[in-house]
Amino acid sequence: MRELFYPERVAVIGVSQRKENLGRNIVENLFRFRFPGEVFTVGRRGGVVFGRRVLNSIEELPEGVDLAIVLTPAATVPSIVDGCGRKGIRWVIVESGGFGEYSEEGRRLQEELLRTARKWGIRLVGPNGIGVINMENGLVTPFFPLSDQALKKGRVGIISQSGGAIFALINLLASSNIGVSKVVSMGNKLDLNEIDYLSYLLEDEGTDIVVLYLESIADGRGLMEVARRAEKPVIVQKVNIYPSTSQIAKFHTAALATDDRVVEAALKQAGVIRAHDFREVVNLVKVFSIPPMRGNNLVIISRTGGLAVAAADFAAERGFRLYPLSEAFLNRVQQAFRAKVISPTNPLDVGDLFDFDFYTQITEEVLKEEGVDGVLFQHAAAPGLETEESIKLGQAFKRLADKYRKPIALCFLSDEQSMAFVKKSLDYPMFIEPGDALPALAASRDRYRRSRTRQTESNFPSFPLDKEELFGILEEARSANRSLFLHEALGIVEGMGIKVAPYFVAKDLEEAAAKAEELGYPLVLKIDSSCLLHKTDTAALVLEIRDEEELREAFVRLVQWAKQQDLPTAGILIQRWVPEGMEMILGARVDRDFGPVIMLGFGGIYAEFFEDIALRIGPLCERDAEEMIGELKGARILEGARGKVYDLPFLKDAVLRLSHLMACVPQIKGIDLNPIMLFTEGEGGMAVDARVVVDDASGY
Amino acid sequence: MRELFYPERVAVIGVSQRKENLGRNIVENLFRFRFPGEVFTVGRRGGVVFGRRVLNSIEELPEGVDLAIVLTPAATVPSIVDGCGRKGIRWVIVESGGFGEYSEEGRRLQEELLRTARKWGIRLVGPNGIGVINMENGLVTPFFPLSDQALKKGRVGIISQSGGAIFALINLLASSNIGVSKVVSMGNKLDLNEIDYLSYLLEDEGTDIVVLYLESIADGRGLMEVARRAEKPVIVQKVNIYPSTSQIAKFHTAALATDDRVVEAALKQAGVIRAHDFREVVNLVKVFSIPPMRGNNLVIISRTGGLAVAAADFAAERGFRLYPLSEAFLNRVQQAFRAKVISPTNPLDVGDLFDFDFYTQITEEVLKEEGVDGVLFQHAAAPGLETEESIKLGQAFKRLADKYRKPIALCFLSDEQSMAFVKKSLDYPMFIEPGDALPALAASRDRYRRSRTRQTESNFPSFPLDKEELFGILEEARSANRSLFLHEALGIVEGMGIKVAPYFVAKDLEEAAAKAEELGYPLVLKIDSSCLLHKTDTAALVLEIRDEEELREAFVRLVQWAKQQDLPTAGILIQRWVPEGMEMILGARVDRDFGPVIMLGFGGIYAEFFEDIALRIGPLCERDAEEMIGELKGARILEGARGKVYDLPFLKDAVLRLSHLMACVPQIKGIDLNPIMLFTEGEGGMAVDARVVVDDASGY
Repeated sequence: MRELFYPERVAVIGVSQRKENLGRNIVENLFRFRFPGEVFTVGRRGGVVFGRRVLNSIEELPEGVDLAIVLTPAATVPSIVDGCGRKGIRWVIVESGGFGEYSEEGRRLQEELLRTARKWGIRLVGPNGIGVINMENGLVTPFFPLSDQALKKGRVGIISQSGGAIFALINLLASSNIGVSKVVSMGNKLDLNEIDYLSYLLEDEGTDIVVLYLESIADGRGLMEVARRAEKPVIVQKVNIYPSTSQIAKFHTAALATDDRVVEAALKQAGVIRAHDFREVVNLVKVFSIPPMRGNNLVIISRTGGLAVAAADFAAERGFRLYPLSEAFLNRVQQAFRAKVISPTNPLDVGDLFDFDFYTQITEEVLKEEGVDGVLFQHAAAPGLETEESIKLGQAFKRLADKYRKPIALCFLSDEQSMAFVKKSLDYPMFIEPGDALPALAASRDRYRRSRTRQTESNFPSFPLDKEELFGILEEARSANRSLFLHEALGIVEGMGIKVAPYFVAKDLEEAAAKAEELGYPLVLKIDSSCLLHKTDTAALVLEIRDEEELREAFVRLVQWAKQQDLPTAGILIQRWVPEGMEMILGARVDRDFGPVIMLGFGGIYAEFFEDIALRIGPLCERDAEEMIGELKGARILEGARGKVYDLPFLKDAVLRLSHLMACVPQIKGIDLNPIMLFTEGEGGMAVDARVVVDDASGY
Repeated sequence: MRELFYPERVAVIGVSQRKENLGRNIVENLFRFRFPGEVFTVGRRGGVVFGRRVLNSIEELPEGVDLAIVLTPAATVPSIVDGCGRKGIRWVIVESGGFGEYSEEGRRLQEELLRTARKWGIRLVGPNGIGVINMENGLVTPFFPLSDQALKKGRVGIISQSGGAIFALINLLASSNIGVSKVVSMGNKLDLNEIDYLSYLLEDEGTDIVVLYLESIADGRGLMEVARRAEKPVIVQKVNIYPSTSQIAKFHTAALATDDRVVEAALKQAGVIRAHDFREVVNLVKVFSIPPMRGNNLVIISRTGGLAVAAADFAAERGFRLYPLSEAFLNRVQQAFRAKVISPTNPLDVGDLFDFDFYTQITEEVLKEEGVDGVLFQHAAAPGLETEESIKLGQAFKRLADKYRKPIALCFLSDEQSMAFVKKSLDYPMFIEPGDALPALAASRDRYRRSRTRQTESNFPSFPLDKEELFGILEEARSANRSLFLHEALGIVEGMGIKVAPYFVAKDLEEAAAKAEELGYPLVLKIDSSCLLHKTDTAALVLEIRDEEELREAFVRLVQWAKQQDLPTAGILIQRWVPEGMEMILGARVDRDFGPVIMLGFGGIYAEFFEDIALRIGPLCERDAEEMIGELKGARILEGARGKVYDLPFLKDAVLRLSHLMACVPQIKGIDLNPIMLFTEGEGGMAVDARVVVDDASGY
């Protein structure tokens, strides 16, 4: 991809002398940003643009053009790209719209475009975007004029599905004196997508932080793999969350929505930091531009006491600890400043001291404290006053942050014009209020922590059930176009080594009665069907059967009901009744974008309404499984908050076994162990019911 | 309070010629803002300030001074206020710090100050604040110099416990061209508090919106009553939420924290809009400066498609509906603009049209659509470009919003300097991105809705239990310094007309066995104690007793255990076992600041871990009770989502009865019906267990 960003010869196709021609703006941008390579222009109408003749056709181009930028009507693009191919051009940016995002005809054109590109081995950026920007060599290809004031060179890479988002971000970052390294507008992502660009930017020496603005995720699993290996902070603003929004995004860039909870889980798991609006993105970029927050020990220094209170709230909310400043600190401060004694509390209210040098000195004294992980300094000034001092303060903080390798989150409240001026003049990021700085510091801390704990590899115990045997069951169901019978589903659960409440399938009443004695009362009777009966469909099962009389009655009732409903059955399943234990749900399904997603949650009639579930993309390592359990709001109950400690090792093992199953057996599209009863410490647990779906189209 | 804000003669006490004197700044501010009244200065050192002689003592002041502003060391303040009293001054602002927020000695001084003020009938502002500002007459009393550029006259009133917060807010509002009417810095709230100031500002003709910045709430119930009657929007930023923060706030303004969940519930109930940072406050002030959002039908118009997607997400999140634009609309648009046909989708992407007049016209066409309740317009511009056009666009939107009485939330993304310039130049509020505008529009809609539904008065059915009888039980317990026995607590529940699972207290085994037959098995046995036994203390009760044999065994065990523990008991309580129904918790407690707080939630072993509870300050009306039920995350279960519809009228009635009890019987400090079993529709419900606390100090 270096060729795309560092071409030596560029052709802009779709240029004319006409006033409304947009292709000319591309050329102008290349000149304005002093792109050092050769630039050729091509346009049907010929003429002269910027003192150079516009070539009438691609054929007239010389050999050795690395990159073509196309901005012509959609219908003409496939043949133009074909021409590029013939000329040996291997990288093409298509900025034209009117493809899949626009109409059926556009979708057809898009397919043709892709075929043409593939034929020649061409890699495509777009279509329907504003191209790329490389601030290192002035390769600036958007089709509207950009001023060099608007584009600042720096170390943030941006990959976006929306051109508007790119400019919103660039402008906001430049306002804080943060520049960009490389920018890509992906448009419809017909060929290259976020995985390609991200992989490149993570290797790019000029890029320290990568921001992605996504409306859809092309290959969730692939993205996760790339992101997981990233040493650089990756920030994702993923929009298009709601189904109603999805429709709009489809118009806009042909993007389809994934279940946002899966996206959220996947990004978190891959160590990606998610933002929900531009303000959050900018705050995150700022915090990753200063040294990382290595722990929870924070000191708040404030120019006004009131704002210190608000800051302390946000600090507590994000799990920070207000570091207790030591006597040693007090002594140093007293020696250093003599008359100006301040009490060594945290937050430090320095409101009465109108002395900027003192602010710097006291901040340095705080940073010297070994236990302190970072500082939040809340600065405030009257409109138009103290701007020079504020800038100097920021510069001093930059030096201190570098010297002590600790973050100083500088917040500044004033009127917006002064704030904008100071931010713009200062080469150190400035936040506005604690609500900006503290969530960002928390993200910095969490990322640092994560980087310190390595993923553990899990050794899966082999499954009791032979893989071939398992595949046989599944294949039989799939070829019959049915889901698994209940006894088959339970067999698979046992097959992966998770205990199931003892059961037996009886064909007739006598067999049932005999087996019931073996299993022991109380019992449950269920119809052993391949239809997915809803748990609340109470006609399909009978609970808590206490003796043979009840058994016989229940058996007859279920057989009759199955007949009435015309259910495909393998008999009646008799199972030991498990009244004790904590009802949990464990399941998995194959997501279109992310592959196997593992789900763990509390069961029971109303717990599921609280949506207390944890999601992870499989396969899981042990840490993932532990984190899933810990993430449940009800985790404290399992850990003994209500007197009983539950068998967490059993639960963790079951989660890992399920993850392993999904990784080994792609035929399974969905599986639910609902409920799986969890017993107290050392007692294990038991799956009671299970459903397995082998068919994508079952609507599972 | 008019006298405080419109004094004719003002004395500033604590003025000197010395460079570091702060009192002089107060005088300077009064002159700069052209305060039209007479200003006298008093200071021990005498001298001349601003061409006027500084009086050596209060005695030298003429008669008829309405307001004194004191800024002298704390220790001198009580005697100065005494002097003011002698001079007939009835309003005093104390800006000095060093009182209750600072030290024990300061707390003593504070008490003396209050006594002195009371003696003379003086009303105090402060101490430990920056006084008041009235932009109508230039009464500007902070002790640091303010420029007239920093203070813009407008219609927002601010009441704050922190001086720093006042200036942060004023500067941010002025940046958007929003000015203030009257401002109060309450400081330690020794005498006057937020209720006094809010009552005044709600009546004040110059004020349209009131913002409160609170670190503590002086009298929650009083504040609610004032706020509830408010016709003007009241926005509260309440900080000091976390216990760790409370300690800091105490230093700062001697504020103590209330349980934030109670605060949250109370503010909501009183129709107050709560904000969590300055950005949110400013966004709310903006939205209340434009016409209200009367419903859910929103049209999004965006200059870039990408940002429309983000806007649609936020719209869906806040429950807005993207109004489907009609054919009629399309026709009008086509007639009006002919060539420029745009498709009538919502969001409208006008990105390709670089025509500001067109933006205005299309927005007007949208507003004309009867079903449309409001518009979000996402504007974006390159740095430094189109600023004039953007200002004109805002001005046009102001006219349109006024004409159609519908809100147009104008968002503007550019570089921060351009944004600050445009905002400052425009007399119409401008947001930044959808994440700013849509939560604000939702607050506008919710407030409008609320204003349309009137509170209903509830007629309480009289209680079966006579009030005197009830008071007797409570008084007996209180005088014995004990909580209620279980049978007494259950008696009170019955007494307020809520059914209780049948029970009987037995003194001995034979009585128990006889009564058990009457009640019918299965039964539960509980120790009838006045000690508050935790529900999980399983030794204190025996569940699901099925026959006399089990009864006898359980009875003996409980009696023995009670003896071992030396529990005060009235016997053993035998109660019908209620295995069916939904376990709910209904309770109330008296909050120090807000009085009776009613709580409703789901019961059961783990539901309480999800903290699915609804809180309201009593007394409740029917709507409150309905809203409490509806607010529970599990409400859908009660409404039949899992097949069973529960008896909601019973639950609502029980909530209202409890509210009534708390209103009539102040002796009860806390009460829990836990669980109260809710049966299916028409079947009512039954309290099973109850605790009543009559003593504040029980730590309940």
